[in-house]
Amino acid sequence: MSASRILNTTLGQADFHPHLSQQRRLYEAVRAAILTQQLAAGNKLPSTRAIASDLGIARNTVIAAFKQLAAEGYVSSALGSGTYISASLPENPLSTLAVSEPPIANQPSTSCGDAANLSARGSKSTAYAAGARFEIQPFAPGDPDFSIFPLKLWQRIQNRVWRDARPELLDYGLAGGYLPLRSAIAEYLRASRSVNVSVEQVMITSGTQQSLDLCAHMLTDAGDTAWVEDPCYWAARRVFESRDLLLHPVAVDAKGIAPNERDLATAPRLIYVTPSHQYPTGAVMTLARRRKLLDIAAAKRAWILEDDYDSEFRYTGRPLASLQGLDPYGRVVYMGTFSKILYPGIKVGYLVVPPALVRPFKTALYDLQRPGQMTVQAALADFIALGHFATHIRKIRQAYGAKRELLCKTLVAQMGDGIAISGEESGLHLVVELPSHVDDVAVARLAAESGIEVMALSTYYAAQPARRGLLVGYAYVAPGKIAYYGKLLTNVIRSAVRK
Amino acid sequence: MSASRILNTTLGQADFHPHLSQQRRLYEAVRAAILTQQLAAGNKLPSTRAIASDLGIARNTVIAAFKQLAAEGYVSSALGSGTYISASLPENPLSTLAVSEPPIANQPSTSCGDAANLSARGSKSTAYAAGARFEIQPFAPGDPDFSIFPLKLWQRIQNRVWRDARPELLDYGLAGGYLPLRSAIAEYLRASRSVNVSVEQVMITSGTQQSLDLCAHMLTDAGDTAWVEDPCYWAARRVFESRDLLLHPVAVDAKGIAPNERDLATAPRLIYVTPSHQYPTGAVMTLARRRKLLDIAAAKRAWILEDDYDSEFRYTGRPLASLQGLDPYGRVVYMGTFSKILYPGIKVGYLVVPPALVRPFKTALYDLQRPGQMTVQAALADFIALGHFATHIRKIRQAYGAKRELLCKTLVAQMGDGIAISGEESGLHLVVELPSHVDDVAVARLAAESGIEVMALSTYYAAQPARRGLLVGYAYVAPGKIAYYGKLLTNVIRSAVRK
Repeated sequence: MSASRILNTTLGQADFHPHLSQQRRLYEAVRAAILTQQLAAGNKLPSTRAIASDLGIARNTVIAAFKQLAAEGYVSSALGSGTYISASLPENPLSTLAVSEPPIANQPSTSCGDAANLSARGSKSTAYAAGARFEIQPFAPGDPDFSIFPLKLWQRIQNRVWRDARPELLDYGLAGGYLPLRSAIAEYLRASRSVNVSVEQVMITSGTQQSLDLCAHMLTDAGDTAWVEDPCYWAARRVFESRDLLLHPVAVDAKGIAPNERDLATAPRLIYVTPSHQYPTGAVMTLARRRKLLDIAAAKRAWILEDDYDSEFRYTGRPLASLQGLDPYGRVVYMGTFSKILYPGIKVGYLVVPPALVRPFKTALYDLQRPGQMTVQAALADFIALGHFATHIRKIRQAYGAKRELLCKTLVAQMGDGIAISGEESGLHLVVELPSHVDDVAVARLAAESGIEVMALSTYYAAQPARRGLLVGYAYVAPGKIAYYGKLLTNVIRSAVRK
Repeated sequence: MSASRILNTTLGQADFHPHLSQQRRLYEAVRAAILTQQLAAGNKLPSTRAIASDLGIARNTVIAAFKQLAAEGYVSSALGSGTYISASLPENPLSTLAVSEPPIANQPSTSCGDAANLSARGSKSTAYAAGARFEIQPFAPGDPDFSIFPLKLWQRIQNRVWRDARPELLDYGLAGGYLPLRSAIAEYLRASRSVNVSVEQVMITSGTQQSLDLCAHMLTDAGDTAWVEDPCYWAARRVFESRDLLLHPVAVDAKGIAPNERDLATAPRLIYVTPSHQYPTGAVMTLARRRKLLDIAAAKRAWILEDDYDSEFRYTGRPLASLQGLDPYGRVVYMGTFSKILYPGIKVGYLVVPPALVRPFKTALYDLQRPGQMTVQAALADFIALGHFATHIRKIRQAYGAKRELLCKTLVAQMGDGIAISGEESGLHLVVELPSHVDDVAVARLAAESGIEVMALSTYYAAQPARRGLLVGYAYVAPGKIAYYGKLLTNVIRSAVRK
């Protein structure tokens, strides 16, 4: 049977992942065909053009699905010579998989937890299943355009590190990370973010998740209360929940987090905020609010965790200094990441901790996470020292700025006064606000059917009446395609609003 | 002031890290001199020979300290041209570090936690401070000899991955890891460890700590009981404690873990074992004990976590199949790592989970740890596929086997019948047993003063009367030095036993 025929049969089954997007369904269909050996190892797949035409789906959707399959090693593609099923697959990959995997997405988490005998907190951690939902498609919020990343240059720098005869770099990292990198980060944060920092306060982690987890563990106990913004970055919520924290959502308005009397009656141990560019609304916390929040933290002996995840991307106006730089009490832990600037999989993030936390955090970082990848840290230190980091930030800021402008123009041209855009001054995404009667989840689903990945604003809310809107990422989409997808998106929005 | 003079002054202070070894004190002295700018950025340090003679300490100790400083980026050394203070340090690295770091090691953990306002569980995680204690010196247990690692070959393979024009590899890993690597691991484990595994059950993690943490989180709730071996690998204990588990130590004898009636009266949710080579005693769990443990887990609906951390290194006899391969109930999660075979900082480990756990674990792995470093995974997959992995295992097994034999011979030649060695059939370390009246912690401290890093067996015990002994690692020491250090060690032991 031809590959297209096999895939068509699978995709024709009504119960084959009915809630996933077309791209994801295609990915799952190819994957299933490989794992069940309907598509045999070493064989060539038809071209993306042929599959698109055979299955009647957009070629971009096929390309995106193939990219994901290649990234995970199911297929490999040499430039210009087509796509092949990986030759290194085992002879009978599913031979011992007697029980089929229980599905997760779109099921109450308890049923899944019961079947697998997971713990209560374990079940909770599977309820969202981001990996099964997100995919890199036009407008996926948060995805940087890592195709701009200077691969060849990076490879040269890495080679120098490896050639430099330093097997010491192959060991674990003991002391909070590679010093020249910590030092470069300290300098950068002092200069560009007004962070009050000495090199010793900088800890290199293996990314945002690891930074969040270390802070949640070291600064809170099970059952403690953490204030999170409402709406809030879902992945932070997941990590805090996994550390058995009680999450208390505090409403965010246009000036940032706005604790009211009821909020103040709680006793938070941790306050998680994104002051530079609130995730997901894009609100910038005002100076007055920042000062007030610092006073609250001091009064309640709470720690503030400032996530400055995308502060590098500011297109208009002057950025406000970091919250950490204003802190007279030593209650702020500052965190950042290189994933948004360089490439997601680099897995290098950092924390700036108050001096009193330096030793305990160093110890816990080593004992609980055991960092490594010192060669990557060394290459990154060189990348910064040689000026490539500053150049790259300028380059992507310019690229994203242009895309942002183009997207705004397209949306306004299409919708006129009918559209309100917010959070567009910085970051990698903006918010298209929708009237409160519109079901933004349904709109996002409709958009997904057109091959556009936008997120419904309401899904980020926990308690306060959810605002309706769409998070639209503009970083990971080719400039030439923005107008096209922008029009597609406004069509979807218009048809939804009209109903 | 000359560098030696500065260091001599620091080291002469009685309160300068009095409990650390000479190597660690030297490391701390150089580090402090750099951070306070007594040793200025860009300057050349005296040769290790000169420093050794100026300070009256062994040259090997100086070399080891310098290696650590280089690994962390405080100094850099080009082959043949000496050692320089890193030029990329900030102008005034300690300018804003007003409060000095509170010391951790050798203090009750509460005092440190109070000063920094850590959480209770956070304080607990700083109590051991492995990073401040361990150092790579002759006989340090668990350290592989990563100088044997074929650096140039690895670099070539990595280059091929980067050159291959695959920016997809720069993204996060969504689906449990890079498929050809998962597939290679599945094949390897089936063939060499009799693990019952399909490729879908293999999840790539970023190392042992991350594997332990994911299992503890997904399979237990705060307050649940986990059985751990007594004695036990300390780092596993740390991770379980950080997930708020109650640790119930179960005695280990020469046949492995031996639960008694009192143990059976508890209800473990998780049972953590090292059946192939118990850590640290080296005992191999018998087949009868394995079967019994599986029955217990099934009856109690507990999960078994089988840590097969160094099963690749077996020098005599045939290895027993994995516990996982015997499991008729699907209650075993199997884990392994590449850190001991390739190099510690690679940070690639893996889990083999029962089919029912595949989906939930994939989700939690992505949502809580957000794996990346797909380029490393791709290079590793190629390294295995091209046969280099098998070659390398053979090579290091031979090298370690020869070292092990030499060490045993030296110890027996020196001590005669006065020495009992155990756990030497496999792994990277053996245990020299000591009479019960000997303080093995004091012996280890004495050994450290001679530049030898051995661990006291008693420190791994939690409940049952601790056996006394020394863990002696033989992987990370030059073959030509084993006899020398072996004699040094027996001298230390003899003088301690005689007292």
